[in-house]
Amino acid sequence: MAVPKLEDSLPQAGEGSQNNKAKTTTISQPTPYAPSDFLSRVDNFAIIESTLREGEQFANAFFSREKKIEIAKALDSFGVEYLELTSPAASRQSYEDCKAIADLGLKSKILTHVRCDMGDAKLAIETGVDGLDVVIGTSSILREFSHGKDMQYIMDKAKEVITYIKSQGVEVRFSSEDSFRSDLVDLLSLYKHVDALGVNRVGIADTVGCATPLQVAELVRTLRGVVSCDIEGHFHDDTGCAIGNAFSAVASGCTHIDTTVLGIGERNGIVPLGGFVARMYACNPEYIKGKYDLQALREVENLVADAVGISVPFNNYITGYCAFTHKAGIHAKAILNNPTTYEILKPEDFGMTRYVSIGHRLTGWNAVKNRVEQLNLNLNDDQVKEVTAKIKQLADIRPQTMEDVDRVLRDFHNEVHNITSSSSSTTSSESAKAQTA
Amino acid sequence: MAVPKLEDSLPQAGEGSQNNKAKTTTISQPTPYAPSDFLSRVDNFAIIESTLREGEQFANAFFSREKKIEIAKALDSFGVEYLELTSPAASRQSYEDCKAIADLGLKSKILTHVRCDMGDAKLAIETGVDGLDVVIGTSSILREFSHGKDMQYIMDKAKEVITYIKSQGVEVRFSSEDSFRSDLVDLLSLYKHVDALGVNRVGIADTVGCATPLQVAELVRTLRGVVSCDIEGHFHDDTGCAIGNAFSAVASGCTHIDTTVLGIGERNGIVPLGGFVARMYACNPEYIKGKYDLQALREVENLVADAVGISVPFNNYITGYCAFTHKAGIHAKAILNNPTTYEILKPEDFGMTRYVSIGHRLTGWNAVKNRVEQLNLNLNDDQVKEVTAKIKQLADIRPQTMEDVDRVLRDFHNEVHNITSSSSSTTSSESAKAQTA
Repeated sequence: MAVPKLEDSLPQAGEGSQNNKAKTTTISQPTPYAPSDFLSRVDNFAIIESTLREGEQFANAFFSREKKIEIAKALDSFGVEYLELTSPAASRQSYEDCKAIADLGLKSKILTHVRCDMGDAKLAIETGVDGLDVVIGTSSILREFSHGKDMQYIMDKAKEVITYIKSQGVEVRFSSEDSFRSDLVDLLSLYKHVDALGVNRVGIADTVGCATPLQVAELVRTLRGVVSCDIEGHFHDDTGCAIGNAFSAVASGCTHIDTTVLGIGERNGIVPLGGFVARMYACNPEYIKGKYDLQALREVENLVADAVGISVPFNNYITGYCAFTHKAGIHAKAILNNPTTYEILKPEDFGMTRYVSIGHRLTGWNAVKNRVEQLNLNLNDDQVKEVTAKIKQLADIRPQTMEDVDRVLRDFHNEVHNITSSSSSTTSSESAKAQTA
Repeated sequence: MAVPKLEDSLPQAGEGSQNNKAKTTTISQPTPYAPSDFLSRVDNFAIIESTLREGEQFANAFFSREKKIEIAKALDSFGVEYLELTSPAASRQSYEDCKAIADLGLKSKILTHVRCDMGDAKLAIETGVDGLDVVIGTSSILREFSHGKDMQYIMDKAKEVITYIKSQGVEVRFSSEDSFRSDLVDLLSLYKHVDALGVNRVGIADTVGCATPLQVAELVRTLRGVVSCDIEGHFHDDTGCAIGNAFSAVASGCTHIDTTVLGIGERNGIVPLGGFVARMYACNPEYIKGKYDLQALREVENLVADAVGISVPFNNYITGYCAFTHKAGIHAKAILNNPTTYEILKPEDFGMTRYVSIGHRLTGWNAVKNRVEQLNLNLNDDQVKEVTAKIKQLADIRPQTMEDVDRVLRDFHNEVHNITSSSSSTTSSESAKAQTA
């Protein structure tokens, strides 16, 4: 509840340059074609963490109250600005759980997600949450096949529900559903209408995962010119653009992004918390390190993965077991010279460690030399090249573990130093660094 | 080798409208703010499948020759236009494997990936591949910490190597490495230089995964104005934008995209084949269905997952076990009315099936009614609402399997029809569809 109201800090005319100045310290945008738009909220956004709402729509999810509280506390301590919970109208337990979490006194604001319906809104207010996320389908396809209402009905209903929620003194967001298949004029008219009613945020939702980053940028820019309130983005990942869309949205003026831990949600889910944090960190590490406890990310992910009975994907952002493993010879050489050559994220900022893999046919002599030094072996460059060729030969037969490699290095070292007249002839060592990016 | 040369079909002035016309049949772009640029190659692109090159840089990957051949054949039969293999200079086995695959006579063109080096290029030509993908680091950070060469050296080396490769009558691509942290003028000068030398493609590579979709669009548009050859994009996924970047690139004029099965590669990998196909299918299902054997996707993924000892991620695009599972009451209701309400991909096009989950607290009576009908039970709407409330109650205690739900429905049905005077009073059934998108 100590969260600064984002709409108070929207960039005013003339502030753009200051915004841009802040960005010159970032890692990922040193090129002349980096986005540097005065609409950008890359340095000033909030996360609405929806593991306890969207995440509950994941096929495997069944959270007991104790588990919900454990997850809520972990996310609060990670530092997310908001937690969104399942509608109290969904079931008796959902109602009670919502109440219990609203009562915890967390730093994160507590929201619940409700249909644009007075009954649902009243039930939600009873639970003591800090805000209501109201949603209604606006695409013609949802209007026809879901709720069957027309735009005038939606406008009138929105007015009734929003006016009521505001009278109760809590935050209110009004979102369309399936925004990217909605008629643009309908959509903008509705947003303008609810902005005038005084909502805190309007939400755009790519409910089916069809939007692309360029479409998102266009819609958010257009919307930014129509409403004065904050803008929230909700992006599904059916076609792999959830994080790209979220970033495009924020770069174009969107202030709040919905995430879930590991991206769990309906179908294959939404923007994952870790992946989104990785994306935003790449733009401005200091801002992200100041907002969130990045060292706690892995723990939060493991907690949720256990709760829903899944494994963290092998290629998970930041915490996947190979996210900081370097293999190709050229990569390994450069990483050992300077990690930022092939790393946009510093593993140590996330409590992770770098691993340079060398027991394979793509290895290079620079990486092997580094290991030789770690083992305190005494080999000159020609000798390292020779033993690298040997490792490649062995690795063509089967992959070599670090122990295998160490044994080869030690044996070679002993051989060299027992038979001091042994050859130091170069081998086909040039091939050692032949594997590239 | 029957692959049409893409550069021959680059849109000419005036062809833009025809391009746009084709797109009006797509599912995902019926909105007025859909990208409809004459540069777009969304309806005319090729995949360079790099599981046997980038994929070999994945921490777990160790492919025997037999496995490489099995993967190459599976990808060829899926229909990818190109296969990219590890440099023959990496190891003896890599050289022999490259030769063996080039000899298979596949429909996919065979490429190998080499450093900008005459030795590597000569070795690659010996293997009989259809083309060479030449790469060199151009960012100042790679120039300083990797190969240590300046731009003039790179230009000269490029000329020597490209001229040689062209003299051998095979395709040649010239790519920078770490393109998004390279100086724009250096980059454009180099591309212009190699375009004039007659390369088939220039490549841009987001080697560290730092690029964003808007940056990619800008760079590709700029580059499209500088070179006349094809453009290839290679995108790492460290910050979750690989697919979004690939799509932005294609929408802005990029003709070729690098993928790997499940996205395996250095660190957490690159654009996954399945996810990229999902993205492109969403724009133009007929084009994608005509190019690729979508029913074979799952098999190719399982083959590679087994080969590298990983599980397909729970949230994998298209083939993840919950990609077509619908849970929330409102979703389930609409999906049963019309699947395109909440599905941008048709599961049957990929040999997958839809699953509507109903044994949970977020269920709705419309979905339950559908199951009642599947089971040939005779219940009116009020009775379905009543049994839905019962399912929610039970699901608040523990998740209900389909068998559990069926038992509840059958018991309820028997009860209703044995005791014909039983109540048909409505319960709190309105809450049944309270859970939303």
